[in-house]
Amino acid sequence: MTDLARLSETMAGRLGARWITHEAGRAQFMAAEGHHAAGLPDVVAQPRTVEEVQMLMAAAQGAGVAVVPLGVGTSLEGNAGAVAGAVSVDLSGMNRVLEVAPEDLLCVVEPGVTREALNEELRATGLFFPIDPGANATLGGMISTRASGTNAVRYGTMRENVLGLKVVLPDGTLIPTGSRARKSAAGYDLTHLFTGSEGTLGLIVEATVRLHGIPEAVLAGTWRFDGLDGAVQTVIETIQSGVPVARMELLDPVAIRACNAFAGLTLAEQPTLFVELHGSPQSVREQRTQLEAIGAGHGAGVLTMSLDRDEQRLLWRARHAALPAARAMVADAVTWSTDICVPISKLAEAIARARAAVDAAGLLAPILGHVGDGNYHVFFVLRRDDPVGWEKARAVNEQLIDYALSVGGTCTGEHGIGMGKRAALVREHGAEAVALMRRIKAAIDPGGLMNPGKIFLER
Amino acid sequence: MTDLARLSETMAGRLGARWITHEAGRAQFMAAEGHHAAGLPDVVAQPRTVEEVQMLMAAAQGAGVAVVPLGVGTSLEGNAGAVAGAVSVDLSGMNRVLEVAPEDLLCVVEPGVTREALNEELRATGLFFPIDPGANATLGGMISTRASGTNAVRYGTMRENVLGLKVVLPDGTLIPTGSRARKSAAGYDLTHLFTGSEGTLGLIVEATVRLHGIPEAVLAGTWRFDGLDGAVQTVIETIQSGVPVARMELLDPVAIRACNAFAGLTLAEQPTLFVELHGSPQSVREQRTQLEAIGAGHGAGVLTMSLDRDEQRLLWRARHAALPAARAMVADAVTWSTDICVPISKLAEAIARARAAVDAAGLLAPILGHVGDGNYHVFFVLRRDDPVGWEKARAVNEQLIDYALSVGGTCTGEHGIGMGKRAALVREHGAEAVALMRRIKAAIDPGGLMNPGKIFLER
Ligand SMILES: Cc1cc2nc3c(=O)[nH]c(=O)nc-3n(C[C@H](O)[C@H](O)[C@H](O)COP(=O)(O)OP(=O)(O)OC[C@H]3O[C@@H](n4cnc5c(N)ncnc54)[C@H](O)[C@@H]3O)c2cc1C
Ligand SMILES: Cc1cc2nc3c(=O)[nH]c(=O)nc-3n(C[C@H](O)[C@H](O)[C@H](O)COP(=O)(O)OP(=O)(O)OC[C@H]3O[C@@H](n4cnc5c(N)ncnc54)[C@H](O)[C@@H]3O)c2cc1C
Repeated sequence: MTDLARLSETMAGRLGARWITHEAGRAQFMAAEGHHAAGLPDVVAQPRTVEEVQMLMAAAQGAGVAVVPLGVGTSLEGNAGAVAGAVSVDLSGMNRVLEVAPEDLLCVVEPGVTREALNEELRATGLFFPIDPGANATLGGMISTRASGTNAVRYGTMRENVLGLKVVLPDGTLIPTGSRARKSAAGYDLTHLFTGSEGTLGLIVEATVRLHGIPEAVLAGTWRFDGLDGAVQTVIETIQSGVPVARMELLDPVAIRACNAFAGLTLAEQPTLFVELHGSPQSVREQRTQLEAIGAGHGAGVLTMSLDRDEQRLLWRARHAALPAARAMVADAVTWSTDICVPISKLAEAIARARAAVDAAGLLAPILGHVGDGNYHVFFVLRRDDPVGWEKARAVNEQLIDYALSVGGTCTGEHGIGMGKRAALVREHGAEAVALMRRIKAAIDPGGLMNPGKIFLER
Repeated sequence: MTDLARLSETMAGRLGARWITHEAGRAQFMAAEGHHAAGLPDVVAQPRTVEEVQMLMAAAQGAGVAVVPLGVGTSLEGNAGAVAGAVSVDLSGMNRVLEVAPEDLLCVVEPGVTREALNEELRATGLFFPIDPGANATLGGMISTRASGTNAVRYGTMRENVLGLKVVLPDGTLIPTGSRARKSAAGYDLTHLFTGSEGTLGLIVEATVRLHGIPEAVLAGTWRFDGLDGAVQTVIETIQSGVPVARMELLDPVAIRACNAFAGLTLAEQPTLFVELHGSPQSVREQRTQLEAIGAGHGAGVLTMSLDRDEQRLLWRARHAALPAARAMVADAVTWSTDICVPISKLAEAIARARAAVDAAGLLAPILGHVGDGNYHVFFVLRRDDPVGWEKARAVNEQLIDYALSVGGTCTGEHGIGMGKRAALVREHGAEAVALMRRIKAAIDPGGLMNPGKIFLER
C-alpha cells in the first residue's frame, strides 16, 4: 500500500465526498494557468474547517504524504502545480468572511474568499480591499504569492496589507501570527515569513487584512503617447515627484491591439497609460493637473478622464482581461508572462530592452504592467507546437532577468518563484541566502512535505 | 583561558584600540536607557568594515563567544544589554551613507548612521527619512527593534521602510536580502525576518531604506481638549475617516506639565494633541478643516497651527524630549515606559484604563504616545529606592498588557521584546508560535550566540 493509499484510509472516512479520488473530479484542480505543464493531482481534499485542516496535515505528516495548498489555481509560475503522490488541498470552500470591523479598518477572512467576493461583502461599509490581480484569486493564494495588482502603487501589495494570519504547520499545530494592531514589535515577523512562502511552510487558514476607505472622488481614464519612452518617462517622473496616483498601468501598442479585439475597445494602437486618481474632488483635480504638466514634456496626448464609475469599471475590466486578450491573438495559444520589477529610474531602459529583445526574436508579445511600481510583464503568445518559439521566449526571459538583476531589480514582482524562477532565485539572492531560506524551510517543515519542488531547485 | 580570552588573542591584534577591554572604555557601552539594570560589557569591539564584522563573527563562533550588537544603546527593554562573557559590538562607527539615489527614492547606509545624520545628509535632495524615535538612534538599531515614531501614522514604521539588508550570519557568511525594487515576490521575506529580530539572528551591516519627498506644505500645531476621552475620540475618528495626518501625538495633562517644565513651554495642563499635516497648501487646509469638524463634537479647543518650520521644530523637539522630561519630574528618577498598541477602536478604553490604573496605584506617570497608530506609552517615574513603586508599576504594566491582548493588540508597538517582555511574548502569541520562532532562531544561530537572553526566556 502506498503512503497516499494509507492516508486515504484515514481521510476518506472523515471528508467523504470531499476526498476526491476519481479522475473527472481531480481534473478540475489542475492549476493550469500560465505556461507550465499542468499535472493531475492524485487526490484532492476539500476541508471546510480549521480542525479538518489540522487533522489532514497531521495525518499527511504521519503518512509521509506531501501537501499542495490550492486556492483557485490562477498563479502563473506553476506555484500550485500538482505533485505526484501528494494531496492537493482545495481551500476554495473555506470562503467565509468571518468578521468585518470597519472601526478598525480590517476584516478577518477564511483563505478561500476571493477578492471579488470580499469587495462584494464590503459594499455597504464604504471600505474596500485594494489588491486586485487580474484573476479573481483567493486571499490565501494572494498572500502566499505576495500578489499585487493595479492599485499597489498607492495601497501597497499583500505584504503591506496583511496584519495577521492563522497557519496550520506541517504537524497540524495551529499558530497565530501578527495582531489586529497597526504595528507591533513583538518577536519575529512570522506574518511576513508566511506571506510569499507559496504554501511551502504551512497552510494559511485565516487572515486579518487591512481595508481602505473608498475615496470620495475617483477619476480614471486613458492617456496616449507618441512613443513608449515618453509614456515610461512620464511614469518615472510621476513617481519621483510623489503624485499619489492610485493606478498607473502601461499598455504598449500590441497590448492595445489585443485589448481592442478582446474587449471591444477602440483605442488607438499607441503606447497608453491607464490612470486612476483617488482623493477629494479638489485633490484629484490637483493630481490631474500635475500629471498633465509632467506628460507635456513627453509627447503625451490628451488625458481623457471620467468620474463615471461604470465607464471606469469597463476600463479596468479591459485591463484585467489583458492576459486572455493576448492569448486570443493566436488560435490555441498559450501565454507566458514574465514579471520583472526594477527600481523606477531603470524602467524606461528595461522596457526598451524588452521590446527590442522581443522584436529581435521575432516573437509576438504585448508588453504591459503595473509600471508605477516598476513592474512590467511581457506576455509571450506561443503555440504549444512551436518549440523554437518557446526556446526564444526562454532566452529573452533570461536576458530580461539578467538586466533587472544588474540594476538591483527582481526576477518577480508579484507572481512568485513557483517552478519557473527557481534558478533565477539563486541568481538574485546568491547561494548563501537561498541556503538560509532552505534552513528555515527545514526548521518549519523538516519532512519537506509542504508543496515540494516549488521555490527551491531539487538537489 | 576563557573563551573570551581566546577570542581576544585573535581580535585584539586585528582591531587594535578598537578591541576595548579596559573598564573606563567599556563603561561607555552599557546601554543604560530604560528601567533595566545596565550591565558592563566584558569587551567591546568596534569594527569599521564588513570584512571586520565577518572575521569577528566567524572568530566568535569558533571560540563559542556570544555577540551583542549595539547601536547607540537607546532601546528601552534591555534589548542591547551586555551579556556576561560576550562581546558587545559597537556599530556606531560604521556610519557612512553609502549612496543616495533620489531618482529611486532610496538610500543605502551603514548600520551606525543615526536618523539625524541621515536627514542632515539628505537635506539638499528634497527627500527625508521619516522614522523618528525620540532618541537619535542608529538605523541598525531601529531596524532591529522595528522602531517607529511620530511619523508612522502616515509613513509606516521601519517594517514598511526597509527595502533590503546585508546581514552577517553567526558563522561570518554575508547575505543580501530584498532588492532595490519597490516590491518583489522572490522567495522568503528575509528582510522582514531580520527587521525586528533584535540582533538575535545576525548582524546587519548595510540597509537600503525608502525615502520620501519633503512635502510642499507642512502645517503643525497643538490642540487642547476638555477631557482625555474627547482627545482620543478625535484621534479615532480621524483615523477611521482616512484623513492622512502625518503626525498625531497625545500628551495627557501630566505629560504637558513635564514638557512645560523641561522644554520651557507654556501649554495649559490639559489633554493635548500635537498634530502635523503634510501635502499641497490646498490639501493641508482641507485636512485641517476635516480635523476641526471632527474635534468640534469632542470638546476641542482652538486648533492652533503654523506653517513656520522653526516653530514646528521647537514643538517636536519638546515632544521628543518627553521621556527625559518625565524623568526630570523627580530627582534621581528612572523612567519605565510601557508600549501598548491596540486596534484604534479600543484606544479610548485602553487609555482610560491606563490612567485609572496609574492613579489607583498612586503612581506618577505621564501618558502619551503615537496615538494615530493606537500606540501609547505610560512613563512610570520611579526612584530606584522605592521597591513598592516598582512592584506597583510592574502590576499596572501587566494589567495594561492583558487588556491589550484581550482586544487583539500587542504588548509592544515599537520597543521590542528585549529582556522585559519575554513572558508577554508567550502570552501574546502562545507557546506554539514562540516555539516556532525558537526553531527559526536555532536554524540560523545553532550555537545560540547572537544576543542571548533577549526575546526568549531562558529555559
Ligand atoms: C489573467 C490573470 C491575471 C493575473 N494578474 C495578476 C496580477 O495583476 N498580479 C498578481 O500578483 N498576480 C496576477 N495573476 C496571478 C495570480 O492571480 C496570483 O498569483 C494569485 O495570487 C493566485 O491566487 P490563487 O487563489 O489562484 O492561488 P493558487 O494559484 O491556487 O496558489 C498560489 C500559491 O499559493 C499557495 N496557496 C494557496 N492558498 C494557500 C493557503 N491557504 N495556504 C498556503 N498556501 C496557499 C499555493 O500552494 C501556491 O503556491 C494573474 C493571473 C491570471 C490568470
Ligand atoms: C528618549 C527616548 C525616546 C524614544 N522614543 C522612541 C520612539 O518614539 N519610537 C521607538 O520606536 N523607539 C523609541 N525609543 C527607543 C529607541 O530609540 C529605539 O529602540 C531604537 O530603535 C534603538 O536604536 P539604537 O541605535 O539605540 O539601538 P540599540 O539600543 O543599541 O540596539 C537595539 C537593538 O538592536 C540590536 N542592534 C543594533 N544594531 C544592530 C545591527 N546593526 N545588527 C543587528 N542588531 C542590531 C541590538 O542588539 C538591540 O537588540 C526611544 C528611546 C529614548 C531613550
